[in-house]
Amino acid sequence: MSVKKIAVLTSGGDAPGMNAAIRAVVRTCAYHGLEVMGVYRGYQGMIEGDFKEMSARSVRDIINKGGTILKSARSKDFRTPEGRAIAYKNLTAAGADALVVIGGDGSFTGALAFNKEYNFPVIGIPGTIDNDIYGTDYTLGYDTALNTVIDAIDKIRDTASSHNRLFFIEVMGRDAGHIALNSGIGAGAEEILIPEENIGLPKLLKSLEKSRNSGKTSSLVVVAEGDNIGKNVFELKEYVEEHHPDYDVRVSVLGHMQRGGSPSCFDRVLASRMGVKAVESLIEGKTNCMVGIRNTKMELTPLEKAIKGTSKINMELLRVAEIMAT
Amino acid sequence: MSVKKIAVLTSGGDAPGMNAAIRAVVRTCAYHGLEVMGVYRGYQGMIEGDFKEMSARSVRDIINKGGTILKSARSKDFRTPEGRAIAYKNLTAAGADALVVIGGDGSFTGALAFNKEYNFPVIGIPGTIDNDIYGTDYTLGYDTALNTVIDAIDKIRDTASSHNRLFFIEVMGRDAGHIALNSGIGAGAEEILIPEENIGLPKLLKSLEKSRNSGKTSSLVVVAEGDNIGKNVFELKEYVEEHHPDYDVRVSVLGHMQRGGSPSCFDRVLASRMGVKAVESLIEGKTNCMVGIRNTKMELTPLEKAIKGTSKINMELLRVAEIMAT
Amino acid sequence: MSVKKIAVLTSGGDAPGMNAAIRAVVRTCAYHGLEVMGVYRGYQGMIEGDFKEMSARSVRDIINKGGTILKSARSKDFRTPEGRAIAYKNLTAAGADALVVIGGDGSFTGALAFNKEYNFPVIGIPGTIDNDIYGTDYTLGYDTALNTVIDAIDKIRDTASSHNRLFFIEVMGRDAGHIALNSGIGAGAEEILIPEENIGLPKLLKSLEKSRNSGKTSSLVVVAEGDNIGKNVFELKEYVEEHHPDYDVRVSVLGHMQRGGSPSCFDRVLASRMGVKAVESLIEGKTNCMVGIRNTKMELTPLEKAIKGTSKINMELLRVAEIMAT
Amino acid sequence: MSVKKIAVLTSGGDAPGMNAAIRAVVRTCAYHGLEVMGVYRGYQGMIEGDFKEMSARSVRDIINKGGTILKSARSKDFRTPEGRAIAYKNLTAAGADALVVIGGDGSFTGALAFNKEYNFPVIGIPGTIDNDIYGTDYTLGYDTALNTVIDAIDKIRDTASSHNRLFFIEVMGRDAGHIALNSGIGAGAEEILIPEENIGLPKLLKSLEKSRNSGKTSSLVVVAEGDNIGKNVFELKEYVEEHHPDYDVRVSVLGHMQRGGSPSCFDRVLASRMGVKAVESLIEGKTNCMVGIRNTKMELTPLEKAIKGTSKINMELLRVAEIMAT
Repeated sequence: MSVKKIAVLTSGGDAPGMNAAIRAVVRTCAYHGLEVMGVYRGYQGMIEGDFKEMSARSVRDIINKGGTILKSARSKDFRTPEGRAIAYKNLTAAGADALVVIGGDGSFTGALAFNKEYNFPVIGIPGTIDNDIYGTDYTLGYDTALNTVIDAIDKIRDTASSHNRLFFIEVMGRDAGHIALNSGIGAGAEEILIPEENIGLPKLLKSLEKSRNSGKTSSLVVVAEGDNIGKNVFELKEYVEEHHPDYDVRVSVLGHMQRGGSPSCFDRVLASRMGVKAVESLIEGKTNCMVGIRNTKMELTPLEKAIKGTSKINMELLRVAEIMAT
Repeated sequence: MSVKKIAVLTSGGDAPGMNAAIRAVVRTCAYHGLEVMGVYRGYQGMIEGDFKEMSARSVRDIINKGGTILKSARSKDFRTPEGRAIAYKNLTAAGADALVVIGGDGSFTGALAFNKEYNFPVIGIPGTIDNDIYGTDYTLGYDTALNTVIDAIDKIRDTASSHNRLFFIEVMGRDAGHIALNSGIGAGAEEILIPEENIGLPKLLKSLEKSRNSGKTSSLVVVAEGDNIGKNVFELKEYVEEHHPDYDVRVSVLGHMQRGGSPSCFDRVLASRMGVKAVESLIEGKTNCMVGIRNTKMELTPLEKAIKGTSKINMELLRVAEIMAT
Repeated sequence: MSVKKIAVLTSGGDAPGMNAAIRAVVRTCAYHGLEVMGVYRGYQGMIEGDFKEMSARSVRDIINKGGTILKSARSKDFRTPEGRAIAYKNLTAAGADALVVIGGDGSFTGALAFNKEYNFPVIGIPGTIDNDIYGTDYTLGYDTALNTVIDAIDKIRDTASSHNRLFFIEVMGRDAGHIALNSGIGAGAEEILIPEENIGLPKLLKSLEKSRNSGKTSSLVVVAEGDNIGKNVFELKEYVEEHHPDYDVRVSVLGHMQRGGSPSCFDRVLASRMGVKAVESLIEGKTNCMVGIRNTKMELTPLEKAIKGTSKINMELLRVAEIMAT
Repeated sequence: MSVKKIAVLTSGGDAPGMNAAIRAVVRTCAYHGLEVMGVYRGYQGMIEGDFKEMSARSVRDIINKGGTILKSARSKDFRTPEGRAIAYKNLTAAGADALVVIGGDGSFTGALAFNKEYNFPVIGIPGTIDNDIYGTDYTLGYDTALNTVIDAIDKIRDTASSHNRLFFIEVMGRDAGHIALNSGIGAGAEEILIPEENIGLPKLLKSLEKSRNSGKTSSLVVVAEGDNIGKNVFELKEYVEEHHPDYDVRVSVLGHMQRGGSPSCFDRVLASRMGVKAVESLIEGKTNCMVGIRNTKMELTPLEKAIKGTSKINMELLRVAEIMAT
């Protein structure tokens, strides 16, 4: 049975490029003569029947907008079979016979459960700034977030170097150090703390001392939220000040601004490609897969694998970071 | 006795446009055939004799750089007569016979003390992002900081509105609400908390409720560091969550990135004008004054007045903010 | 008779901040309990009855958007009494009893003619990037355009100085040199050519030679569209190459990107203040006036004066530009 | 014989990320205890002996700067055996025994000739915004240029859509359509004209008409400099106006600003990785190779191949562009 009407939703934390992906899904449907409808607030909107018919024109002027016009939310109800039953009833009542889910791990888990119960075709698009999804070299929003972060750190460096200060800068990444590692290299950080590697407090101190002795008057340490050195940025400040009362230490937590902003060209093109691939995969009868970019090409990965696998950091980058801090 | 060699320094918190002001001072000296030298790390560098001869070419490519190439620092030593004596000895030994101080209130207080003891000609240029100096409609760096702030808040709004959240966003301003008030209007904040006005917690709650009832699904509250509502942004989050457990509240502290970045055109032009005016005022024999912009024109204000006066917020803006939150 | 329903339109060349002004007009109406409707495509939309009822919520999320959601257009028909008659019929049929026009000189001329014939209350808001309107220190969009221009020129300087090149950069401004003069100072241009002053080709050559001899390896000349040196940027390139075959000369015409982009904080706040003032002036029974900012305060200027007067460039800035090019 | 001192130069058109690459080369040398010197103005500086000893500290604060601190130039002299002989004499006299060349095709051709004559170890780093080099998925500066271009086009779209206009926008790319194709997709262009594909004037007209009929009131056409439709953007404007006098057509040539600006995070990280790989390849005794990124990994390609091969555009993107213009 061929697909006639696709539903599309965004779920989990929002990421720049989600709107570009929605646009791509909608326009690819229009191109292939399929109907398409948006689901508001992720799975919760499916349960509440919060739908909107969409057309090629209804996604104009959103490719460059941050956030998601379909909004996002977490849905406890969808974790229950009862919730999913209502969602299924609503979806089919609205005529939808396939679903594109733009989101992260958690969103894909929901999609998989839904498919298993109702054999409803689903394709996932990885949208999260954390780049922590197996099966794709880049997730949507990651490249934009990196640029947002280095732009902020460049500004912090201005003031750090005017005052000969040491800054601990917290960036997003609870389970994965991709943002910290890449933005740390990009911003020229002296040290980078990530969840995947515990350098230990003594090595951190030593690194800062070496940095100072080498003639650097200011230093930046980029710290992932989920770093495992056992101290957050405020505690790190205290720790360093205890050992080096002469250091002028400051803290900055970049926070939620990392999730917003107009997507980079990379993310807009990636979103466009993923949207096309997602819809055309559904047309070809594929299901339970995630669209990803692997070695510059579009590829499908079974959702199950995408959920279970982890996106490892590039160990080469750890070495590059160390060499660059010379 | 005419001026032959001008010393220039930056002092206090750094601000975008300080480099543009240094460049303007140096080039105006070159234009008028005066010598000019930079003093590193503010008054502390005067005491340590940390000087650098400068020429028109040594300030190339800095007009668009944040921070200050002369660096800035606080100096306890300069608060003592002994410190100032050494500073005077160093300055005169290096041939300087006039001083341009780019900084804020505290820096001007030091300049004034120095002048009183040694009759050394000094002119101040107001450089601080806080816009809290009497005698000028705009301080250097303020306009840039406002743009940095609204750029960050625009990004936060993307994610706030995707998730229907309420954000408390802390911006700089310990004693003055200029940044909060203007960036709050510019970013379309629902409520703005500043040191000059205590709206009280009940009114804040009521305002948030009204905002919700009017159909707004997300809200931004911009809070100056020095707001006097008695709670910081983290406490405000707790307070609101207690009263409205259904609100999804988040906090963002923008922090030091507000001090950095490439200056806006407004700040670059202002810095250029102020630098010219500062040097030419010294040539004309003026001293103990601060250069300011008043009603689009360059004007001098006695340093004493600049220090004692306060830069009041524009009450019209409070009304505009309220109306815009309709 | 008190005002009950205000119509608002944008006319002439679009400028960043127009959306913020529309928002301010609409919200101020809502605040005061007035109805408000938008008119699409300027006066042409009045003639075609292309209206849209607006509310406080219909202007959400536009304060940071460039362009104008009401669109803009030139209208030949409105220059005829017949066209204005139809426009009047449409406006009154829709219940509007006052008009806010956001635009430039030409738009105000139309508003004045309309008022004279039908005694219809009109207030103007100066929206144009050129800053060439009498009665206001700043027009809406001007500050944003300046930042767009210096951002582009900063990029050009990167490549100019990597290759030791001379660039002629054309910026907007047919009749007024405000953009060229301020962006030229802000970008650190070696020479600035504006309509208000003809420095003559020999002086330009001399200035470039002096720049070179002073040790500068690259140079930027900012040229207003309407410069009166008698040659456009392409002709200037040829002219200089004829006289100095060893100069590596390039040309860049910044073009329409100067009109777009998210408005600066300055423009957003200015637009908000002007929108409030425009509506409240109509409520107070004022008409035939333009809202402006003079010496940091909102002021009204008769439209007739605003149209006839010219916004002179600040001669102090010419001197600053010359000194900065030392 | 092991490497002791590396010379590094930038050559050809400058690109964002070149400074980050210089920094990476210098710091990797420092890390491995090698000496390193910069050569100014590319091969011309080699011939003129314009060298500068560099250390880890001399490349501080340049990772985020556009352009190249070593400057770039074309050198006719280096194309002659006599020129290369002098260059070799100078290089060896300065103690250099290996060379890193950051540039494009032409620069690599020079490097290869030099190596063949003097058996001097050379490694290339692909630095050009055009992305037209075989052996690497991305050249340095390309990602940044894409973001610069879409930022400019986003601004142009603001004004295009306010006035219902059609814009022809010329972007860089004489021989390759990478910039046009990717920025065109990223900016949501209705049509994209590239050197690799001649769609023909009738199809262009038809596409614009279809776009209009589908309800789009404004349109953007992104045109690569080297498009082969036989008309440049100004001629295209004339052509369309002849056939559709009712279209309001404008032209924008983005020009040299595309070469400048602070590099994106992607380019900074790529430059850092490439710099490390280049130096470590020389240490390992490699020569006549170009460092590239292939499938997210660092890889070497023989310079000969890099020069002869072409970097083909991704045909999938042509399809994506067409679907997105639905």
